[in-house]
Amino acid sequence: MRLSARNQIPARVTSINAGEAIANVELDANGTRLVASITVEAVRELGLAEGTEVIAVIKASEVILATAD
Amino acid sequence: MRLSARNQIPARVTSINAGEAIANVELDANGTRLVASITVEAVRELGLAEGTEVIAVIKASEVILATAD
Amino acid sequence: MRLSARNQIPARVTSINAGEAIANVELDANGTRLVASITVEAVRELGLAEGTEVIAVIKASEVILATAD
Amino acid sequence: MRLSARNQIPARVTSINAGEAIANVELDANGTRLVASITVEAVRELGLAEGTEVIAVIKASEVILATAD
Amino acid sequence: MRLSARNQIPARVTSINAGEAIANVELDANGTRLVASITVEAVRELGLAEGTEVIAVIKASEVILATAD
Amino acid sequence: MRLSARNQIPARVTSINAGEAIANVELDANGTRLVASITVEAVRELGLAEGTEVIAVIKASEVILATAD
Repeated sequence: MRLSARNQIPARVTSINAGEAIANVELDANGTRLVASITVEAVRELGLAEGTEVIAVIKASEVILATAD
Repeated sequence: MRLSARNQIPARVTSINAGEAIANVELDANGTRLVASITVEAVRELGLAEGTEVIAVIKASEVILATAD
Repeated sequence: MRLSARNQIPARVTSINAGEAIANVELDANGTRLVASITVEAVRELGLAEGTEVIAVIKASEVILATAD
Repeated sequence: MRLSARNQIPARVTSINAGEAIANVELDANGTRLVASITVEAVRELGLAEGTEVIAVIKASEVILATAD
Repeated sequence: MRLSARNQIPARVTSINAGEAIANVELDANGTRLVASITVEAVRELGLAEGTEVIAVIKASEVILATAD
Repeated sequence: MRLSARNQIPARVTSINAGEAIANVELDANGTRLVASITVEAVRELGLAEGTEVIAVIKASEVILATAD
């Protein structure tokens, strides 16, 4: 499967904080901390757990750029 | 300024492909290629050009996770 | 590849309206018209053209619900 | 009310999994399963329940395309 | 039509900068400047022009909060 | 820090409804009610509470326009 999404960052799950509907999945991407908020259903279906290797996929239109003043 | 957005990735602008309304800004984040689609107005106001240091800011709710099957 | 995104709709490309940075890709999903705005780079890399079979992938957090009043 | 959002998919609520802040609303769109994560406040205000007819509204910029390969 | 989206801001169109695929629509919301990037198709179908009264609709999950500091 | 995001609306926190993973933060923006769904981690790190002054930051690509029919 190939995706139109331009941002695909390899990472590893470091922790999961799950509520009833949404879980925050914390990732380590080569030293950079990332967080993905996804449904608890997706956590279960993908079998995500500490140590799982994933790709963080982000559309180019979702990225904001910031500059130091 | 502090942001609620959980994903803040330091990167450097490598190229800008600008249309009339939107520009695709290509970034290098420590070896990972990223792309941000932002308004041409923002490119101009932030003074973005090849080599500019930026932070790619992404809300946790915008991140999709993928696993190899 | 498996995705956390909960919405995955099979569709066929019916037309592409490309600008310099972004292209609007029109889809037919079993009779429902869909439109995806993606980068022109993605159109090229995925080899999208009239008739290409695709999956429209949408995170659950991006879906708004409307009811008739 | 007319909306700029290009994707408007008629569907029916099949189940609601509500947490404290967010609810995942499962939909059937003519045989395709969809999920919308919305606030519990919106579920209450729109009176959503199993069987409610809704429109799933999605901006074109939120749609990722995937191809087999 | 009622929407699950929690943010609905009345505004007036002040200018439109249209490219081939996407247009940036500039709004005045009671003195606050807003910008919406939407498809040129939507601009045409909604008949948007300088002076048109609109509602800017934004999902709660799309809002980032920033604090000074 | 300067942001590419075109929509930056000053507001004040009026209430916070927190679940396990996500909190809905209710805002007053000069009389307009806004809601932001953010991670509970962000609420804690930014020290958000009733009365906190914030900026609601929204990308132009996340804004849908609606017109009265």
